[in-house]
Amino acid sequence: MTLETISAARSFGGTQCVYRHQSRATGTPMTFSLYLPPQATGGTPLPVLYFLSGLTCTHANVTEKGGYQRVCAELGLILVAPDTSPRGEEVADDDAYDLGQGAGFYVDATEAPFETHYGMYSYMIDELPELIGASFPADPRRASLTGHSMGGHGALTIALKNPSLFRSVSAFAPIVAPSRVPWGEKALAAYLGSDRAAWRRHDAVALIEDGARVPEILVDQGTSDSFLERELKPELLAEACAAASIPLTLRMQQGYDHSYYFISTFMEDHLRWHMARLLA
Amino acid sequence: MTLETISAARSFGGTQCVYRHQSRATGTPMTFSLYLPPQATGGTPLPVLYFLSGLTCTHANVTEKGGYQRVCAELGLILVAPDTSPRGEEVADDDAYDLGQGAGFYVDATEAPFETHYGMYSYMIDELPELIGASFPADPRRASLTGHSMGGHGALTIALKNPSLFRSVSAFAPIVAPSRVPWGEKALAAYLGSDRAAWRRHDAVALIEDGARVPEILVDQGTSDSFLERELKPELLAEACAAASIPLTLRMQQGYDHSYYFISTFMEDHLRWHMARLLA
Repeated sequence: MTLETISAARSFGGTQCVYRHQSRATGTPMTFSLYLPPQATGGTPLPVLYFLSGLTCTHANVTEKGGYQRVCAELGLILVAPDTSPRGEEVADDDAYDLGQGAGFYVDATEAPFETHYGMYSYMIDELPELIGASFPADPRRASLTGHSMGGHGALTIALKNPSLFRSVSAFAPIVAPSRVPWGEKALAAYLGSDRAAWRRHDAVALIEDGARVPEILVDQGTSDSFLERELKPELLAEACAAASIPLTLRMQQGYDHSYYFISTFMEDHLRWHMARLLA
Repeated sequence: MTLETISAARSFGGTQCVYRHQSRATGTPMTFSLYLPPQATGGTPLPVLYFLSGLTCTHANVTEKGGYQRVCAELGLILVAPDTSPRGEEVADDDAYDLGQGAGFYVDATEAPFETHYGMYSYMIDELPELIGASFPADPRRASLTGHSMGGHGALTIALKNPSLFRSVSAFAPIVAPSRVPWGEKALAAYLGSDRAAWRRHDAVALIEDGARVPEILVDQGTSDSFLERELKPELLAEACAAASIPLTLRMQQGYDHSYYFISTFMEDHLRWHMARLLA
């Protein structure tokens, strides 16, 4: 597991890095960004928050626009932002923005032509945390997940399926029930096939209905998000959490849209919320 | 003076907007971003800080990566980020990144083929402040300037030439003596011709040598900035300020580069520094 440093820039007293490595989960080079706060030199392993990005994004979007570095530097929190899919000429793709490269949906694809490289679920629960733990002063027992839109779906489903691996989970404008909305129906059919039973293992609402549990969930959702009614449907998560007695803090943020202006506004709240749980 | 709204997104309780208008100074449409803090609805005109961007940039770079919205929302400070040049198919350009579109250098060009549209100096001292004053709850008597690299050059020279228009000036990694560095020599020759006497009116160090004054200057400069020795030369500004008894706070920031990771780290300091002077 060799890490190639793509860039490293001083930021708020720490270092904002971008790395590339050859992934066994995807069979391709994978790129991720990692913010190393100033406390990294102190000898104590630091907690890690993974931020999973949305459709069309790479690691770069939240790294450049998320505004997390200031608070991570204060808290001593490592933030890792992986890419949203495998990439490359040999990697299956689709002309649409919501399938293929840039749209991995954090599943291990079982269907052609995607099954060869689209192993984002294994990448996230296995390979990337192992790599982070081996390469940085990170405490493997203190990791949490957040994400935006498709990445919010990734954060919720991965946390629900692996409550022992991640201490806490939050999301910004997540897709909560991909089995029941156009983005998700298209992607899950392409990646997992037509048997909808397989989809339930990658659908936060269905996972909760089927018994998966996390201690609590924080979600911010803008009321002026153009995807709110058709693709995001946070009310379905609220219903599932209520039925399962999972404490959900769902904050409907008046007038906010789906952009990084929304994410950066509430990023600090999420970082502090996770940090409190990572240190508990 | 009709403003066309390109976008508006809620951010930290205020609104991050992008506007376009037909400019008399450039004879082209010009785009700028404007952050309107939550205090804009309070009835009291707010102070304005102009951020001038560097080579290759548009309004978008600092708007997306500068991270100013949180502090502007706290302070009640409007931030305006203009484009760095006129743009369009009919606008003279150059294949190089450091001349033509994206590289206006905040001068009124006198030389063909640039003299037709490259009126960025007039745009900044006259047209844009008038437009902001007429269109937003902005206090025209409370305006300040900052900028990055080429835009730091713009901020310093415009403030030195117009001390009654701008209350305070700061810069991030500015070009301080364009007459004496490759970027500036190329651009000033192309825009202003071969007579170097004309260049002195758009060179911060030369302006100070020739008697221009501002009350004080704040500059942050990364020590790992790859342009430091060849293009930026802050020591020339330090010498000129010392000789002219202009208080200069020049902070050499250890390990920081020329990127927006550097700018965003020190943005809060600059916003608070300007706000104290805007309210004085």
